[in-house]
Amino acid sequence: MERIIATYLIETPYDPPAAAAVLAGEQSSGTFVAIPGETAQLKERFAARVVSVEALETLTSPAIPGAISPNGQYHRALVKVSWSIENFGFNLPLLVSTLQGNLYEIKQFTGLKLLDIVLPASYGIHFNGPEFGVTGCRALTGVTGGPLIGTIIKPSIGLSPEQTASMVDTLASAGIDFVKDDELLSASANSSFEARLAAVMQVVNKHADKTGKKIMYAFNISGEMDEMQRRYDAILAAGGTCAMISINSVGLSATQKIISKGGLAIHGHRNGWGMLNRHPLLGIDFRAYQKIWRLVGVDQLHVNGIDNKFWESDDSVVASIEALKQPLFDQANPLPVVSSGQWGGQAFETYQRTQTVDLLYMAGGGIMAHPMGPAAGVLALQQAWQGAVDGWTLEATAAQYPEFRKSVEKFGSSK
Amino acid sequence: MERIIATYLIETPYDPPAAAAVLAGEQSSGTFVAIPGETAQLKERFAARVVSVEALETLTSPAIPGAISPNGQYHRALVKVSWSIENFGFNLPLLVSTLQGNLYEIKQFTGLKLLDIVLPASYGIHFNGPEFGVTGCRALTGVTGGPLIGTIIKPSIGLSPEQTASMVDTLASAGIDFVKDDELLSASANSSFEARLAAVMQVVNKHADKTGKKIMYAFNISGEMDEMQRRYDAILAAGGTCAMISINSVGLSATQKIISKGGLAIHGHRNGWGMLNRHPLLGIDFRAYQKIWRLVGVDQLHVNGIDNKFWESDDSVVASIEALKQPLFDQANPLPVVSSGQWGGQAFETYQRTQTVDLLYMAGGGIMAHPMGPAAGVLALQQAWQGAVDGWTLEATAAQYPEFRKSVEKFGSSK
Repeated sequence: MERIIATYLIETPYDPPAAAAVLAGEQSSGTFVAIPGETAQLKERFAARVVSVEALETLTSPAIPGAISPNGQYHRALVKVSWSIENFGFNLPLLVSTLQGNLYEIKQFTGLKLLDIVLPASYGIHFNGPEFGVTGCRALTGVTGGPLIGTIIKPSIGLSPEQTASMVDTLASAGIDFVKDDELLSASANSSFEARLAAVMQVVNKHADKTGKKIMYAFNISGEMDEMQRRYDAILAAGGTCAMISINSVGLSATQKIISKGGLAIHGHRNGWGMLNRHPLLGIDFRAYQKIWRLVGVDQLHVNGIDNKFWESDDSVVASIEALKQPLFDQANPLPVVSSGQWGGQAFETYQRTQTVDLLYMAGGGIMAHPMGPAAGVLALQQAWQGAVDGWTLEATAAQYPEFRKSVEKFGSSK
Repeated sequence: MERIIATYLIETPYDPPAAAAVLAGEQSSGTFVAIPGETAQLKERFAARVVSVEALETLTSPAIPGAISPNGQYHRALVKVSWSIENFGFNLPLLVSTLQGNLYEIKQFTGLKLLDIVLPASYGIHFNGPEFGVTGCRALTGVTGGPLIGTIIKPSIGLSPEQTASMVDTLASAGIDFVKDDELLSASANSSFEARLAAVMQVVNKHADKTGKKIMYAFNISGEMDEMQRRYDAILAAGGTCAMISINSVGLSATQKIISKGGLAIHGHRNGWGMLNRHPLLGIDFRAYQKIWRLVGVDQLHVNGIDNKFWESDDSVVASIEALKQPLFDQANPLPVVSSGQWGGQAFETYQRTQTVDLLYMAGGGIMAHPMGPAAGVLALQQAWQGAVDGWTLEATAAQYPEFRKSVEKFGSSK
């Protein structure tokens, strides 16, 4: 019978194999005293199994509160645990409760992070994965070479539908590929979803009629289930191509339901991610996280960006892009969404370290605040990526292209 | 215009007021360069505001990775921030993205925990809260005095529907009020949801016909949206009174949708909670968390238990029960679900510190592994609570009641 294997980074004051056994017991058949009916046969079929325990370093203080070590030592280890898919089938919320449930409560751990999961072959048959992904998003936007260039409407909240549409008009004229609502805006007092959709799509369709290129606008539909369904349908009816969902806030089951409707690319925004990942010994690593959301079927997923304005390291960003580049069954690969403090200067390191242009590269001020205007801002980003792909340095690219040179002058020293 | 106020515990190498200003900017209109269109009027209406900053202690090492302090100092503070409800209206996922979104990514913080929220009066009109809560769950189970006594079917996973039903038969005969699926079981290879529902409800209804008392069985419906709806309907049709949802795994929007159907008490299981709460300087405190889920409408919510087998302190458990006891508008109060390593001995401290019997008190082995059998196990729990409410000590209660005395002998030294 197929099994799912999860890898955890653990820390414990006890012997790591003993602590791993507690995890396996708690997450399959554990209780604090022996119970009639818990037969050896049942255990064999449904019990979680500790596959391996690889000892790592020992420290003298715990990473997070838990059991106190009698000898002041806290042992870290990589632990692999497996479950039969007979336990949960293809029920993703149940899988999440198994892999990321009460085990975080176990006091034998002073650190516990889910690093990765290995999914069985039947998941590749049952789950379709992203409807669009990299290839589909390229087809929808008509972008054949280089990354999709995108931006977020700012200020995040406060603009009227007409002001938003006017910015989209400017951006579409500038040759942008993708524009999105901020995650803080779905419907505000001065920008109802319906009015914004109508105003923005009028502009998007006007440009598409004129140029043959339809920019992708990600409308933030995050909200109650019925409202999300209505808004999804409204986007489709208006000729839109994308809906944005704050996946952590909306949650797994509702996102899965929305995606099952089909027809729109889903922009998966991971706001709240820091809560799940920021501590090195607590939560979930992006490698595991992205697999779950690929099964759910998001077409685009945020990965932050090199030299970003947030706390995340460049190494972590690169690892996240690499994770999304890996195949998952024969599913489409989601498009990594690179954002946060990006202006084009990071294209060089991003390309050098990931060797891909299959990205949605998002810049805010880097476009709208470009000294020569938004069109030059978009062009500058394309130039930066062209230079990066051609193996040029930032300096050589700036010397070649005047628009990118202006970006370097304005944004090159900002952090 | 009404505002929502959130209180955060922060840690920062910078001046706390400056870091708080970054949070407010990021969570309303922030980007890394000035943008045309961001007028003073817009800011005034939609910007988050720092209400207060209360300095706490200063430490010499950061709680979580973030900006490095130039002078080695990390300042903690309580920060209150407010948002106009014009930003998100009654859209709870959007509220969550505002209160718990990208702010966890801000590198200016080396610690950030959402402690509490103050909701505006209009939320009390818009949201109904729990359909049943304490009073409704008492009415459904016919329990008028003392806590509802409950248990979890163990082993968590592996029993057939017939074995589960047989245990329910035993437990119903023993006088129990509440039984639940484990959160690891919804449908397994040898226990389909439908077969388990049929087998269990046949037993539940048989006892109800005989005694007039219908025990509440919480069937775990956690899963995909359509399946959850079908299972909810099936429980109702079979005469059941309760559905269980792993709220973190299923997510907010789908849980809200299920609850809107009406008719069943919702048992809110918070597995995965440790990931959100276990670090003292990261995530969300139960005070804030429970308010969101009360708005969603869960009728029962887990709070762990005194002297539990997990990592959580007794103080934290007591604070969680107190949080659920507080009124929220004129909504019904959810029933706190006390569980984990409970056998009755903890009734004394639980009552002494919370002064309430409006609890669902869950014991596993404490019932099924009682030396005199499950009926004595249930009776022992009722005796423990009677003794606690009467102001007796554990010892006096054990001296008075033989069933509880046996519990003390068997479980009194276990931890």
